[in-house]
Amino acid sequence: MSATVSTVTSLQQALQHKIDCKTKPHKALGRLERIALQAGLIQNTLTPSISRPQIIVFAGDHGIAATGLVNPYPQEVTAQMVLNFLSGGAAINVFCRQHQLGLTVVDAGVNFNWNDSITDAGFIHAKIGYGTKNYLEQPAMSAAEAELAIAKGREIVAAAAASGCNCIGFGEMGIGNTSSAALIMSAVTGTPVEDCVGRGTGVSDEQFTVKTTTLQSVFRKHLPAIVASPSPYTILQHFGGFEIAMMTGAFVEAAAQKMIIVVDGFITTAALLLAQLINKQAMDYCIFAHTSHEKGHETMLRYLHAEPLLQLDMRLGEGTGAALAIPLVQSAVLFLNEMASFETAGVSNKE
Amino acid sequence: MSATVSTVTSLQQALQHKIDCKTKPHKALGRLERIALQAGLIQNTLTPSISRPQIIVFAGDHGIAATGLVNPYPQEVTAQMVLNFLSGGAAINVFCRQHQLGLTVVDAGVNFNWNDSITDAGFIHAKIGYGTKNYLEQPAMSAAEAELAIAKGREIVAAAAASGCNCIGFGEMGIGNTSSAALIMSAVTGTPVEDCVGRGTGVSDEQFTVKTTTLQSVFRKHLPAIVASPSPYTILQHFGGFEIAMMTGAFVEAAAQKMIIVVDGFITTAALLLAQLINKQAMDYCIFAHTSHEKGHETMLRYLHAEPLLQLDMRLGEGTGAALAIPLVQSAVLFLNEMASFETAGVSNKE
Repeated sequence: MSATVSTVTSLQQALQHKIDCKTKPHKALGRLERIALQAGLIQNTLTPSISRPQIIVFAGDHGIAATGLVNPYPQEVTAQMVLNFLSGGAAINVFCRQHQLGLTVVDAGVNFNWNDSITDAGFIHAKIGYGTKNYLEQPAMSAAEAELAIAKGREIVAAAAASGCNCIGFGEMGIGNTSSAALIMSAVTGTPVEDCVGRGTGVSDEQFTVKTTTLQSVFRKHLPAIVASPSPYTILQHFGGFEIAMMTGAFVEAAAQKMIIVVDGFITTAALLLAQLINKQAMDYCIFAHTSHEKGHETMLRYLHAEPLLQLDMRLGEGTGAALAIPLVQSAVLFLNEMASFETAGVSNKE
Repeated sequence: MSATVSTVTSLQQALQHKIDCKTKPHKALGRLERIALQAGLIQNTLTPSISRPQIIVFAGDHGIAATGLVNPYPQEVTAQMVLNFLSGGAAINVFCRQHQLGLTVVDAGVNFNWNDSITDAGFIHAKIGYGTKNYLEQPAMSAAEAELAIAKGREIVAAAAASGCNCIGFGEMGIGNTSSAALIMSAVTGTPVEDCVGRGTGVSDEQFTVKTTTLQSVFRKHLPAIVASPSPYTILQHFGGFEIAMMTGAFVEAAAQKMIIVVDGFITTAALLLAQLINKQAMDYCIFAHTSHEKGHETMLRYLHAEPLLQLDMRLGEGTGAALAIPLVQSAVLFLNEMASFETAGVSNKE
C-alpha cells in the first residue's frame, strides 16, 4: 500500500514539474493545470491523451409525468426527442458534431413501442420498462429493475471502453426527471426537498408550488422504506428513473475503466450522487462540466466539493454541458503534451 | 433613424423567435442564446456564421521592465516568447491548432533586432520602436507613435477582414505590460491605482508592494498631462505600450468591420477600455471570453457591464482565453443554424 502511495506521489510530482516547466508563468493556466494533473493521474502517465470521446444519452419516462403535476411538457416529448436525437436535430447533436464526439442514445425506459423501427448504430435498445410507475402510488420500479438498470449501464460503458473510448460524458432525456433527481438529492444529501426542487424545463410559479408540495409528499411517503434499507438501490427503486439508474451504473463502470468522466448537469449529477455511494473513488475520475441553472445543482456540486468549468446558465440536459466542456479537457491534455518548456524553447525563467 | 431602429428591432424579434422555436425548453441554452442573438445582430442575419476565426498576438516591450521594479521575468522574455510563438510551442499555439484558429504574431515594439531573420507568413513586422520609454522618467511614447500604433492596429485588422475573417480575438506578449494596463485602467475608470495593480506573471509579496508604490508614483507624475488633454491617445502616450496601442486600434477597426470580437484578459481589456472611448459602439461587437485571475480584470469587466463566458483562473495572456472561448461562440451560432424546431422535429411544445 505504501509503495502505491509513493508511486502516485512521485507521478503527481513529475506531472506538476512538467506543468511548471511549460513556457508560461507559474499556475497561469489555472484550472486547466489541475485538469492536466488529474488526467495524468487517471491514466497513470506523463502524457495523457483523449481517445474517442463520446456522450451517451439515456432516455426514460416517469410515471409521475402522466399526472402533469411536475412537468409542463407532455410525456410524449421523451420519445419525440429520442427521434430528434436520431435525426440529428437536437442541441446535443449539434455540439457532438462540432467537437467530433461520438453520440449514443439509449432507450433506458421510454414509454413508446418502437416496433424495431429504429436500427441506427448509435441507438441501444435497453428498455427496462415502459416508463416507471407513478411514485405517488408505489415505488417507481422493483428492486430487480433497479439492479438490472444499473447492470445495463455498466455493460454499455464497458462496451464503450472496449471500443477505445477513454473520455465520456452522460446525458439524459426524460420528461419529469428533474423531480426524481430532486428526490434523490434530498435522500442522499439531507437537503430539504423544497431546496432541491427547481423549475425543470420551465414550470410557472403556480406549477412550481404544486411540484414542490407534490414532491414533499412523495418524499415523506417513501422515506420509511428508504430508511429501513438505506442504499442507492433502494433510493432508485422508490424515486426512479430507469435512465438515472442506468447512468448510476454508467458512472460506476466508467470509474472502474479509469475513464475521464465529464459530468453534466442536475439529473446526471444526481446519478453520480448515487454512484459515489457505490464506489467512493468514482469522484477521482470526474471533471465537472458546468453549473446548471437548475436550482439544486449548485448545492449538489458543493456537496461533492466539485468545481465546475462552465457557468453558462444552461439547463437543457442531454449531456450538452459535458459536450461543451470536453474541448477544455482536451485543451488541458494538449498543453501538457505540446507546449514547449522554458529549456526547450530557450525562454528565460524568473530571475 | 427610426426606420433603422425598427429594422433592428424586427431582426431582434425574428432571431429571438427562431431561438425560442428550437427543440429545447425556453432559455435552456442560457448564455449561448444571448450570444446567438448578438451574432445575428452583428451580421444582420438570421443565419450568422463564423468564418476564418483568428487570434492576433501583439508583442511589445516596456521601458520600465529594465528597472525590474514591476516584473519578475527579464525583458528578453518578450522576444524569446515571440520566437516560441513562431515555432509553435506556446499555449496560444496549442489552442489555435486545437480549434483551427488562424494565428498571427505582430511585432508592435519588441526590443530586439530580428535582422530580417523572421520571414514567417504569420508574422507581421510593425515595430514602432525598440520598446517604450521608461515612464518613470518620461512619457512611454510620443503622440505620433501612439497615433501610428493605433493606425497600424487598424490596418492589420482591416487586412484580416479583407481575407475573410469575421471573428477575431486579440492577445499580447510584453514583459511589464500588466503595469501599463493597470495605469490605463485607473485613468479610464477612476479606480485607485492600488486596486488596479495585480500580481502579473507572479511577483512576490515584497515585489508586489514595490510594483504598487512604483505605479502610484508613475500615475501621479503623468496625471497632470493627461488631465490637461484627456483622451485615449494621451493615456497611451504616457503609459504605453506599443502593443496595447495597436490593440486599441485593432478593436476600433474590428468593430468598424462588424466582426465578432472575442475579448481576452486584463491587458487586452485595457485596450478595449480605450477603444470604447474612441467608438462607444465597439462594445456591441464584443463577447467576453473569461475573467482573468489578474486582480483588476473583474473590476474592468464590471465597468464595461461585461459577462465573461469562462472563469478558469487563467492569467497567461497571448489571447489564450479568447482561443478557448471561440468554440463556445461557434456553438451558439451552430445551434441557431442547425437545431430542429418543435415544428420540423414533430416535438410537442408546452401544454
